[in-house]
Amino acid sequence: MSEAELIARIRKLFPRSGDDAAVIGDQVITNDMLVEGVDFTRDTPLRSLARKSLAVNLSDLAAMGSKPRFALVAIAAPEWVDMPLLIDELAAAAAEYDIEIVGGDLSASSQLVLSITAIGEAEQPILRSGARPGDRVFVSRPLGGAGAGLFLLQHGWSAGGEPPGDASYSQREFAAAAIRSHLDPQPEVGLGLKLVGIATACIDVSDGLSTDLHHLCEASGAGAKIERARIPPFHGLTTEGLSLGIDIREVVLNGGEEYALLFTSSMRESELSARTGRPVYAIGRITREKDVLLDDAPFPPRGWDHFAKH
Amino acid sequence: MSEAELIARIRKLFPRSGDDAAVIGDQVITNDMLVEGVDFTRDTPLRSLARKSLAVNLSDLAAMGSKPRFALVAIAAPEWVDMPLLIDELAAAAAEYDIEIVGGDLSASSQLVLSITAIGEAEQPILRSGARPGDRVFVSRPLGGAGAGLFLLQHGWSAGGEPPGDASYSQREFAAAAIRSHLDPQPEVGLGLKLVGIATACIDVSDGLSTDLHHLCEASGAGAKIERARIPPFHGLTTEGLSLGIDIREVVLNGGEEYALLFTSSMRESELSARTGRPVYAIGRITREKDVLLDDAPFPPRGWDHFAKH
Repeated sequence: MSEAELIARIRKLFPRSGDDAAVIGDQVITNDMLVEGVDFTRDTPLRSLARKSLAVNLSDLAAMGSKPRFALVAIAAPEWVDMPLLIDELAAAAAEYDIEIVGGDLSASSQLVLSITAIGEAEQPILRSGARPGDRVFVSRPLGGAGAGLFLLQHGWSAGGEPPGDASYSQREFAAAAIRSHLDPQPEVGLGLKLVGIATACIDVSDGLSTDLHHLCEASGAGAKIERARIPPFHGLTTEGLSLGIDIREVVLNGGEEYALLFTSSMRESELSARTGRPVYAIGRITREKDVLLDDAPFPPRGWDHFAKH
Repeated sequence: MSEAELIARIRKLFPRSGDDAAVIGDQVITNDMLVEGVDFTRDTPLRSLARKSLAVNLSDLAAMGSKPRFALVAIAAPEWVDMPLLIDELAAAAAEYDIEIVGGDLSASSQLVLSITAIGEAEQPILRSGARPGDRVFVSRPLGGAGAGLFLLQHGWSAGGEPPGDASYSQREFAAAAIRSHLDPQPEVGLGLKLVGIATACIDVSDGLSTDLHHLCEASGAGAKIERARIPPFHGLTTEGLSLGIDIREVVLNGGEEYALLFTSSMRESELSARTGRPVYAIGRITREKDVLLDDAPFPPRGWDHFAKH
């Protein structure tokens, strides 16, 4: 059974679970779990792990236009884990994101699992389901960095950005930035708050642009037409990234764990940038026809499927 | 590092995590995790697992005097797990407890982990910290059944109550009830709600009476004097249980996963039973001196320590 099939089944049973976070009154709540061997390897620094486990949850809240407030942290940890360090790093990351850790659970295990629940305020949450035909489709930042970083880590680069062999200064510089964007993703909390009342629908790019665009279109009962040339690639990807053997098309279109926001609005790019005070990127339009297209060809969901991975 | 030391460290970092659930506005929220090999074995029926993973969280809400409303379910599952069945059983249990599963996460893993977050309403949550010298100490039901059930499962009895060898009818009857109370614990949701305004402090017996009484006394800045003879033993424990080799003192005083409520009140037992419409058991008093005593001897916390287990 693929994750998509399972999620379809879960959705039938638990109808509220369609968005990045569930709406409860004027709060939204979400849970994301990181599992050793699936989402990270044993040599991932605990500092990265602590930050990322919070960041992926805050990204869900950002996609709802919610202000993060609280988190609960459940840790199942094998003996090799330096628990005091992990807890200190979680506390530091929570302080940085201005959230309070209010509870959680601890257990022994043979495989490190972090399950974090985050709660935010949202009087007017942005759903996945609000996109209307004619709306522009936006991404909040260039894509492909996280996928490139993962590729490099899998091909001998160290978490600190050391190459497996010779590498030019500009290759090293690109690689370090890509690896950082994989290990230490930045949730778009500030932007999410600014999109309230502006975005008609929003989702974070956790499974990959293609897959998350499908999620948004399905929820909205619409389709989309994306222009390949308008999708901004991560800085250096088409030059240094290409020279390092990265499949640019793959990491941009299908790379997971970007934690950029993918959202829709009737506004133009320049208007939206002015309103949010930062660059955003219009990459296409929502269509009445339910097909999801890249230029004139089908744009299939080929992003990350957590369940197909094992 | 023991769980107690870790919890002390976590408490310093996250000051709100002292109660069974964290109070956020007029809601309370809790998270409990069940880990294969620590909290259950691979041959535990998925139905039991689904029910228990919700029940342990609802017991935390019950201890706060809260009405359960929502849950988030994170599952990290190896390939042997029948996920559709597990999800169906979770949905059935949620329906029975009248809670709505509003989200969660799924992942592959090598070890089954269920991490559940439960949210309840509580305008006037009962804390651990409200016990006052002179208050009576109560348990909500006889103790030792869950520990007895675990002992029997570890000594060849089947989850269905089949003995490893010869057993009398009354032994089988006792064993079946004890195993059921271990595999399918009943959270005291109804009682918890009734204790609002009546109990001065409350905790659920998840780590064992001795340890949870210490938690309550520490939070309240008080001590307690318990009368051994007044602690009600699980039905049949002192007869059939004894004949089956169960250490009665150990399972009653230190057995974990009882999910009875341990609470304090200035009311008498008869008054409290009348107010709640059911039996409750006064087992001692809260004292100004901070010692925790059983009759006249120290009553050390020898219950379950999740972290010391590995």
